[in-house]
Amino acid sequence: MNARIVGWGHTPFGVHKDKSFETLILEAAREAIAHAGIEPADIDEVWLGHFNAGMVPAAFASSLALGLDPVMRFKPATRCENACASGGAAIYAARDAIGAGRVRTALVIGAEKMTDLDTRGVTQALGRAAYQPDEAGLSFPGIFAKFAEAYFEAFGDQSETLARIAVKNHANALNNPLAHLRKAFDLAACNTVSDRNPMIAAPLRLTDCSPISDGAAAVVMVADDMVGDFPRAVGFRAAVQMNDFLPLKGRDLTRLEAAHHAFAAAFDAAGIGLDDLDLAEVHDCFTIAELMICEAMGLASVGQGARLIAEGATLRGGRLPVNVSGGLKAKGHPVGATGVSMHITAAKHVTGLAPTEEQIAGAELAAVYNMGGSGVANYCSILEAVK
Amino acid sequence: MNARIVGWGHTPFGVHKDKSFETLILEAAREAIAHAGIEPADIDEVWLGHFNAGMVPAAFASSLALGLDPVMRFKPATRCENACASGGAAIYAARDAIGAGRVRTALVIGAEKMTDLDTRGVTQALGRAAYQPDEAGLSFPGIFAKFAEAYFEAFGDQSETLARIAVKNHANALNNPLAHLRKAFDLAACNTVSDRNPMIAAPLRLTDCSPISDGAAAVVMVADDMVGDFPRAVGFRAAVQMNDFLPLKGRDLTRLEAAHHAFAAAFDAAGIGLDDLDLAEVHDCFTIAELMICEAMGLASVGQGARLIAEGATLRGGRLPVNVSGGLKAKGHPVGATGVSMHITAAKHVTGLAPTEEQIAGAELAAVYNMGGSGVANYCSILEAVK
Repeated sequence: MNARIVGWGHTPFGVHKDKSFETLILEAAREAIAHAGIEPADIDEVWLGHFNAGMVPAAFASSLALGLDPVMRFKPATRCENACASGGAAIYAARDAIGAGRVRTALVIGAEKMTDLDTRGVTQALGRAAYQPDEAGLSFPGIFAKFAEAYFEAFGDQSETLARIAVKNHANALNNPLAHLRKAFDLAACNTVSDRNPMIAAPLRLTDCSPISDGAAAVVMVADDMVGDFPRAVGFRAAVQMNDFLPLKGRDLTRLEAAHHAFAAAFDAAGIGLDDLDLAEVHDCFTIAELMICEAMGLASVGQGARLIAEGATLRGGRLPVNVSGGLKAKGHPVGATGVSMHITAAKHVTGLAPTEEQIAGAELAAVYNMGGSGVANYCSILEAVK
Repeated sequence: MNARIVGWGHTPFGVHKDKSFETLILEAAREAIAHAGIEPADIDEVWLGHFNAGMVPAAFASSLALGLDPVMRFKPATRCENACASGGAAIYAARDAIGAGRVRTALVIGAEKMTDLDTRGVTQALGRAAYQPDEAGLSFPGIFAKFAEAYFEAFGDQSETLARIAVKNHANALNNPLAHLRKAFDLAACNTVSDRNPMIAAPLRLTDCSPISDGAAAVVMVADDMVGDFPRAVGFRAAVQMNDFLPLKGRDLTRLEAAHHAFAAAFDAAGIGLDDLDLAEVHDCFTIAELMICEAMGLASVGQGARLIAEGATLRGGRLPVNVSGGLKAKGHPVGATGVSMHITAAKHVTGLAPTEEQIAGAELAAVYNMGGSGVANYCSILEAVK
């Protein structure tokens, strides 16, 4: 039995000082249930995508969503974790549960509350997603700076390309009312190191990094023989997971190797090519990641992405619009929520339900690429409307 | 497609100052692969059951097992977390993956390294499995002391019953070379508060609490049409997961309510009654939990467990041997490993492969009950040999 996405909920991403981790989970879940037009009693199981690593004290959060309603008591609930791809992990686990015929209706929630800690605390928590024996002293900006350094060394300085990616994603976020950072930035601002745009980990500047965000996103997934009961349904033409080795040592840092394999496998499973896609939501935790992901999906060969980005291939109206939601860079990146949020953006576009200014007209196929750690966990989905 | 367990590996449980979390994972995984008679290349996917909550700095551990062999690169790997039932969660997720036909061979590992922290640090980490808004100040001994208080208030002081459970499980662990605590205790020692057996959280004494252990356990699971390739195969007659509300508030603390429902559903799914079982491995994180679980499975009605325990019903040779491995109490409780370890004990017995002194002769059906938090996550399996 194939799984279909039939409803979704999504809190605004941003700084939510007034909302607890639990509140964010419940808000997104309630909205998804209402959007699907079901009741809590209809849910067979809950999956939670959540990283944590010390960002909130609640280390056993799977059952928080049962607080939705007394009828939720005794329903199974499980947390999946794959760092910043924890949301993708939860969606894929729910797909298995439905695929196995064990459950008919699953509620999947991705959530993270990051701003209870200060920036230093969040940086330390995220740093625990690196391979500790070798990389415990590195921050994630530091890790992606290593990718950028390797890339720049091989293919020349790409700072302006990275700035273009930031400018695009900030512009796209203006169309997304749920985005964390809704402010236009020009190329000069993103491409200049300044007091307002300091170097975070050379060569990555502040505008090359996604922000620290709170937020939650949820989807309702059902078995495909149930889609007659719902006004909309989105299916997976492909759903590929691949994990790379955790240590950076020994890996080629000029590319995200697992991403190349994951996209190739997803296109193969879907029976499509890159040009069949109408949009792609990809994991731009840092602008260098988006550049490398564009190459991984085949928009350009490795080292050649700069030209296509300068030509506007990934802009709205370009060959393949990338991160029309604003991406992690500007929509925000509450890490456990991100994978679920990306699937929601894709689902909205292929059903014509994205915000008016954000909608890619007539979108039929959307790719999602959600990544955990330094290109370690990789989830590549191809979504299409089936109703 | 149903999932079968065809091999297993299990490090000794105990204090492993010389072995890292990663080393424990790899040891158990290698042993399971060898026991199944397969190669790393044969594995389609990895699932890791692991709680962590600050016990080790590695917060993104799913891919560590890929370090087994270069051929593991790009295989999917995902962590499941449901507190002390994280091992059960990983096994059930792998069951779904096989059930959905997405993978044919899964490697499931449960692991925890606890002794890198001191007792206070471990207690704080485990305490994060409670509902933080109300229960952040409570330790897990404190939480199970609340269950014991409620039970004692309703049904009278059961300290001697709890001591009998400790004595039994310590005696059983003498038969298990992998157990953490392999030392006989007599009833007087366990039932007397002393310098060597202090009150930890009244009415629970040191001998009522499971120890702080390091360890890992792993199983290889395959699709049932593959069992012809393996010398042994263990199937799930039932595999039931139920989650209770996370907050203690509003729950009846004289019983583990979700456990009652989970056992009833498992017996129903398996088409068996309690007396069809040959043994049960259950989650005696504290002796009061084993007493309540015995009642949850129907060995006695609520409040009436003392007599059956005094009569020896749960001893080897009794009506239903409970925790012949030594249980969490004496085998040890590296929390993420526990659920996998329990399934291994059950699998060993139904295939006649338990250590000679531990083996229940002719065992055909074994129950596993793995619990996370204060009776919140509940996994109840009924295992049988299918080959």
